[in-house]
Amino acid sequence: MKPSIPKGTRDFSPTEVANRTYIMNTIKTAFETFGFQPIETPSFENSSTLMGKYGEEGDRLIFKILNSGDFLKKADEKLLSEKNSLKVTSQISEKALRYDLTVPFARYVVQHQNDITFPFKRYQVQPVWRADRPQKGRFREFFQCDADVVGSKSLWQEVEFVQLYDAVFSELGLAKTTIKMNNRKILSGIAEVIGAQDKLIDFTVALDKLDKIGKDGVVKEMLSKGITEDAIEKVQPLFDFSGSNIDKLTSLEAMLASSVEGTNGVEELRFVIDSIEGLGLETANLEIDVTLARGLNYYTGAIFEVAAPEGVKMGSIGGGGRYDDLTGIFGLKDVSGVGISFGLDRIYLVLEELGLFKSVDLPKPKVVFLNFEAETDLLKMKAIKELRNHNIKSEFYPDLGESNKAQKRQWKYVTNRAIEFVVSKVENDIFTLKNMISGEQNDVSLEELISELKA
Amino acid sequence: MKPSIPKGTRDFSPTEVANRTYIMNTIKTAFETFGFQPIETPSFENSSTLMGKYGEEGDRLIFKILNSGDFLKKADEKLLSEKNSLKVTSQISEKALRYDLTVPFARYVVQHQNDITFPFKRYQVQPVWRADRPQKGRFREFFQCDADVVGSKSLWQEVEFVQLYDAVFSELGLAKTTIKMNNRKILSGIAEVIGAQDKLIDFTVALDKLDKIGKDGVVKEMLSKGITEDAIEKVQPLFDFSGSNIDKLTSLEAMLASSVEGTNGVEELRFVIDSIEGLGLETANLEIDVTLARGLNYYTGAIFEVAAPEGVKMGSIGGGGRYDDLTGIFGLKDVSGVGISFGLDRIYLVLEELGLFKSVDLPKPKVVFLNFEAETDLLKMKAIKELRNHNIKSEFYPDLGESNKAQKRQWKYVTNRAIEFVVSKVENDIFTLKNMISGEQNDVSLEELISELKA
Repeated sequence: MKPSIPKGTRDFSPTEVANRTYIMNTIKTAFETFGFQPIETPSFENSSTLMGKYGEEGDRLIFKILNSGDFLKKADEKLLSEKNSLKVTSQISEKALRYDLTVPFARYVVQHQNDITFPFKRYQVQPVWRADRPQKGRFREFFQCDADVVGSKSLWQEVEFVQLYDAVFSELGLAKTTIKMNNRKILSGIAEVIGAQDKLIDFTVALDKLDKIGKDGVVKEMLSKGITEDAIEKVQPLFDFSGSNIDKLTSLEAMLASSVEGTNGVEELRFVIDSIEGLGLETANLEIDVTLARGLNYYTGAIFEVAAPEGVKMGSIGGGGRYDDLTGIFGLKDVSGVGISFGLDRIYLVLEELGLFKSVDLPKPKVVFLNFEAETDLLKMKAIKELRNHNIKSEFYPDLGESNKAQKRQWKYVTNRAIEFVVSKVENDIFTLKNMISGEQNDVSLEELISELKA
Repeated sequence: MKPSIPKGTRDFSPTEVANRTYIMNTIKTAFETFGFQPIETPSFENSSTLMGKYGEEGDRLIFKILNSGDFLKKADEKLLSEKNSLKVTSQISEKALRYDLTVPFARYVVQHQNDITFPFKRYQVQPVWRADRPQKGRFREFFQCDADVVGSKSLWQEVEFVQLYDAVFSELGLAKTTIKMNNRKILSGIAEVIGAQDKLIDFTVALDKLDKIGKDGVVKEMLSKGITEDAIEKVQPLFDFSGSNIDKLTSLEAMLASSVEGTNGVEELRFVIDSIEGLGLETANLEIDVTLARGLNYYTGAIFEVAAPEGVKMGSIGGGGRYDDLTGIFGLKDVSGVGISFGLDRIYLVLEELGLFKSVDLPKPKVVFLNFEAETDLLKMKAIKELRNHNIKSEFYPDLGESNKAQKRQWKYVTNRAIEFVVSKVENDIFTLKNMISGEQNDVSLEELISELKA
């Protein structure tokens, strides 16, 4: 039976690891340049930390870890005989795998609040797990790359996050991304104006689907959720919202004039748009998108989402927003947080499609010393030691190949791995060095070998 | 209720992450310099991949993941009512967390054998999980850093692993580690000579405890396991084994002359010792330790273990060995493997004890711009953008502080985080820059600011 791995999980080959590391290091470097500090939290948390934080659907998708030892001992016999999976779960499982990085971060802040200097700018790049149905670009194990600030309500943070997205995607060579922004207060203001405050979540969830199901679909969904035709009529302008960011702000300001919250939202968004106008962006576009709600109901201010360059078919490659009460769930009130996330797997697919991994340094040796005669082994190993001391990735083919067939296997090894340089022989301190790309072959001293390979 | 994390797991603060990253990057760089390539495997595997590979104790310590959804549906009612935890496990759990990196690596090699060029030198740095009783230096989640070669029986690999240990520990500033070596064939040879072949595991497990329970304890344990007094008499020299490596080889050669396997083991060990003698080591010592068995029964050739420098109380900080049939468990026969592991957590504790983290670059900004007046915000943000373009880690204090109290809070933030430079004011394109260490304060242009902070 051929071994396999669980569905929705992946093995990463050396080339894939190198490419992923390149993306992650680019993101981490930018995070640190912007003043963020790394933390790491455990892969599993107490179930009580995670359960109930992501809604009913989220609870279902959290991977639970079975208690060790005689886990059935404490389970209720009646529930077992009824096969009540839902209620038995908490009796046989006390730990669960991390579902995202935000809730563990909130837990971290509350637990370590006395050791933290606020505002606290932290970043975290770690895997998360979800028992979701796997599909293209959606996995059961995947990395999140998050940066958040807690303990500041300043809108300069929102400005910095727009700059951070621009800096990372520009550095990755991914020009012309679109950073979409909205504000939860604008969405609330709209609901207020149309008199459907109690249906805000239904409204935003439906509005978020405009790209996918079109205006008719959205209207149909809104009606089905009990939002009146009259109310929908009042938001007609939102279904064909266009023009410059300034135009959009003007239009929203007028539409939401009667709503204090909505007006606040417009002002917050205006601050970010104006500041970015003054600072400039390298390669990204910043665009107000009033359909943006991200299906999440915990954002309270800014909402971010990043779209790949036009022409690349891919969902969002990043997103985030502000949540006024991040740590309240763990008992620390009034701590505002704002953060963004980079979608590593989708960014990978986009870079691959656009051929942007070319410059990544693959993890393979620069030179391989072939092994055709045992007598010079030690001389070769001594030379290899010198090369490694000069940080030149070097390898000795381990198995002696005296026969023709065995020697061919060594040349094939070099070709298969696309090794650039080969040392096939050493005699009287002179090395026979072959450039496998040009085919050129030279006899060189150790000093020449080092300088040739360092070039 | 204060939030907490499961026992045996850890949060890592920014400083801890930086120090751990420093160790891991040092190890990874050395791995690549020696020609190893990175792979990554999923955090959880199918239970069938892991169960039965680590003995009964191992099976017990593997963390199992509960099936999603109505997991009790398929469980046997009789077993449930009997509360038979052991048998119910496989009915309600199909996945389990990685227990080490070796078995997933073996699975990887078999699964991807057609894409791999052999010999395959891979490294892997990922967390593993064990439901062990937590204690000092032993955690339920911890990282392993492994390098292995499969597909070569050449003893040059063993030589390279000794060099690799030496290179990493020297680079970390950890001089005078002791790399202990033994060979499983020598242990088998000893068992053969004393006529207790069937008790080899009991013998090696007991011999491994020489340091802990002394000669009397070992003898007592051997007797209790049914090894005869007569047999124990024959291995007396092993209880006071000393002298140079060459002396030890000579003594072993004589003792094992009647055993073919034992003699092979001595010859293998001699090759490694002689080669390292010829190549030299930077800071480590290589030492034959015939009590070394590592409690593991899958090594078939070389056995490695690294001890911290004398004076540092710490168990082994690394270990490994050769296993002739690594991938046989997954159906690919006759593939020899040899590998070593670095014990990240223990290395961390040793470096901390010896004060060797001093040179680690902490993830904090080089400069913080204070925020005492809203008018110059944009000018400061423009300057910060320039600094970041020059890769200078820079931060803007986000919240405006006009009152005395609010301004004090900003200075306190800078002091708490031990920030080196502060820009407190900008006026007519001139920045007021304060060096927080020397106390010196200067008015500088943007160009001067950049060159001062890059220095």
